[in-house]
Amino acid sequence: MKKLADAQVTIVGLGLMGSSLAGALRGRCRAVVGVGRRAETIEAALARGLIDQGTTDLASGVRRADVVVLATPVRVILRLLSEIGPLLPAGCLLMDVGSTKVQIVARMADLPSHVQPLGGHPMCGKEIAGIAAADPTLYQDHVFILTPLPRTSETALALGLALVKAVGARPLLLDPERHDRLVAAISHLPYLLACALVGTAEAMASADPLVWEIAASGFRDTSRLAASDVTMMLDILLTNKQAVLEAVSTCTAQLCRLARLMETGDEEGLQTVLSSLRDSREAHIGAVTHET
Amino acid sequence: MKKLADAQVTIVGLGLMGSSLAGALRGRCRAVVGVGRRAETIEAALARGLIDQGTTDLASGVRRADVVVLATPVRVILRLLSEIGPLLPAGCLLMDVGSTKVQIVARMADLPSHVQPLGGHPMCGKEIAGIAAADPTLYQDHVFILTPLPRTSETALALGLALVKAVGARPLLLDPERHDRLVAAISHLPYLLACALVGTAEAMASADPLVWEIAASGFRDTSRLAASDVTMMLDILLTNKQAVLEAVSTCTAQLCRLARLMETGDEEGLQTVLSSLRDSREAHIGAVTHET
Repeated sequence: MKKLADAQVTIVGLGLMGSSLAGALRGRCRAVVGVGRRAETIEAALARGLIDQGTTDLASGVRRADVVVLATPVRVILRLLSEIGPLLPAGCLLMDVGSTKVQIVARMADLPSHVQPLGGHPMCGKEIAGIAAADPTLYQDHVFILTPLPRTSETALALGLALVKAVGARPLLLDPERHDRLVAAISHLPYLLACALVGTAEAMASADPLVWEIAASGFRDTSRLAASDVTMMLDILLTNKQAVLEAVSTCTAQLCRLARLMETGDEEGLQTVLSSLRDSREAHIGAVTHET
Repeated sequence: MKKLADAQVTIVGLGLMGSSLAGALRGRCRAVVGVGRRAETIEAALARGLIDQGTTDLASGVRRADVVVLATPVRVILRLLSEIGPLLPAGCLLMDVGSTKVQIVARMADLPSHVQPLGGHPMCGKEIAGIAAADPTLYQDHVFILTPLPRTSETALALGLALVKAVGARPLLLDPERHDRLVAAISHLPYLLACALVGTAEAMASADPLVWEIAASGFRDTSRLAASDVTMMLDILLTNKQAVLEAVSTCTAQLCRLARLMETGDEEGLQTVLSSLRDSREAHIGAVTHET
């Protein structure tokens, strides 16, 4: 297996994640090839210097690839995994950047044996989808989770790790079940909370439209994730259903506990819980320093 | 009643909101007097040029005031409202910046008749409490809600409006009940959601401490309000109990609706709801433009 510097890396899907990854890798490997659905996307990627070559044809885009990274919504990754095996050269490392891992890694296990599969999930993003928001520094200093399979060779994993480090990210190895449970709580649940908050404001706005006028930075930040790309989030939620539903249920219980403390007027209990949550967030996430 | 430029304004409470208000008003009125609990706070406010004079003695701080603004946690405001009347000169405008208004305005109604009361709530803030975070631009371009009482004279309201405009804020007149219902949904609920999210991560972390390692910007932003000052938030929640509990209940129903759509695998329904929430947020709050 080649070193990253000598490898051709083909990125399938030139949305925000794929085009940013391409831009971050360009110059750090022999060539970055972009595969997009539309000719205009390829042209934009070339014009912005994010890829060395591009094509709308999957087969020709991956034919000479040493590394292929699937950077589409999760269920498109699942479909591509069923088709792409025979198109890949022997020894090719096949990665992805999908936000859920159990179903993807299960599908990777069925790939033909000449392919080296490696699941991946970079813990970064933006709410703005598409190549227009491409940013080669997107991955910098973020955790990039890798979920190797039992069949993933050591050299394949080493190449995957080199790619993660080349874009400035910090690799973290996890098994897919643990990954999906963790991201359900810290990523998919926050999305649903943001959506539920917007839904609450919407419900209230039908009686009093002023609700939107006075929504300030607290509302804006807490609801920010509701602006995420719906196609991407739908795939995530539907391929991580059980873990997400468990996280929702834990969170609902937390919310009920806070409501009950208010309802019963247990001031001391409420203060204790709120203080402990505040301290916990500060200890683990850090103090808030920016203006709001 | 004097014009703002000729008025002495006394701010009671030199935390974030009070000291920022003082700094924003200084030079726009005859004198800004700060009343703080501790001598060190007064010294800091003087050293930073936020006030013209300061004292730890409430009575002497308000004795010659044309305007007094109470800028303490809500339940301290309630206590001050029971004591301060006899200390105020005739015709004095008494405002506050407390985040709930029904109980405060009810208490204002009992003030002696020589005082002109006017409830207020600026829709801005930071998670960082205290004078160290003081920022005279804090109020700029934010909505500043005013809740006049039937007994508030037109000239008193005009002076209050002048003060709001002098600090760069946009005044909005509301009755206290409507105010409390609205802020329950767009401000107090987001705080509780942020707390419940941190509680969920905490619950999960007892089984898997890695949860904190991979928490990324989505978690950070959605949980940001959980870093709010607990004393301040406790007062807010306990003086707006009914409206907050109703908002929590509406939000829980929204969350359940999303969970049910996932559970039953109603993909089309889920997509419709998520898209409509996304569009609603964009229409009312604006598109997300910053990186995450």
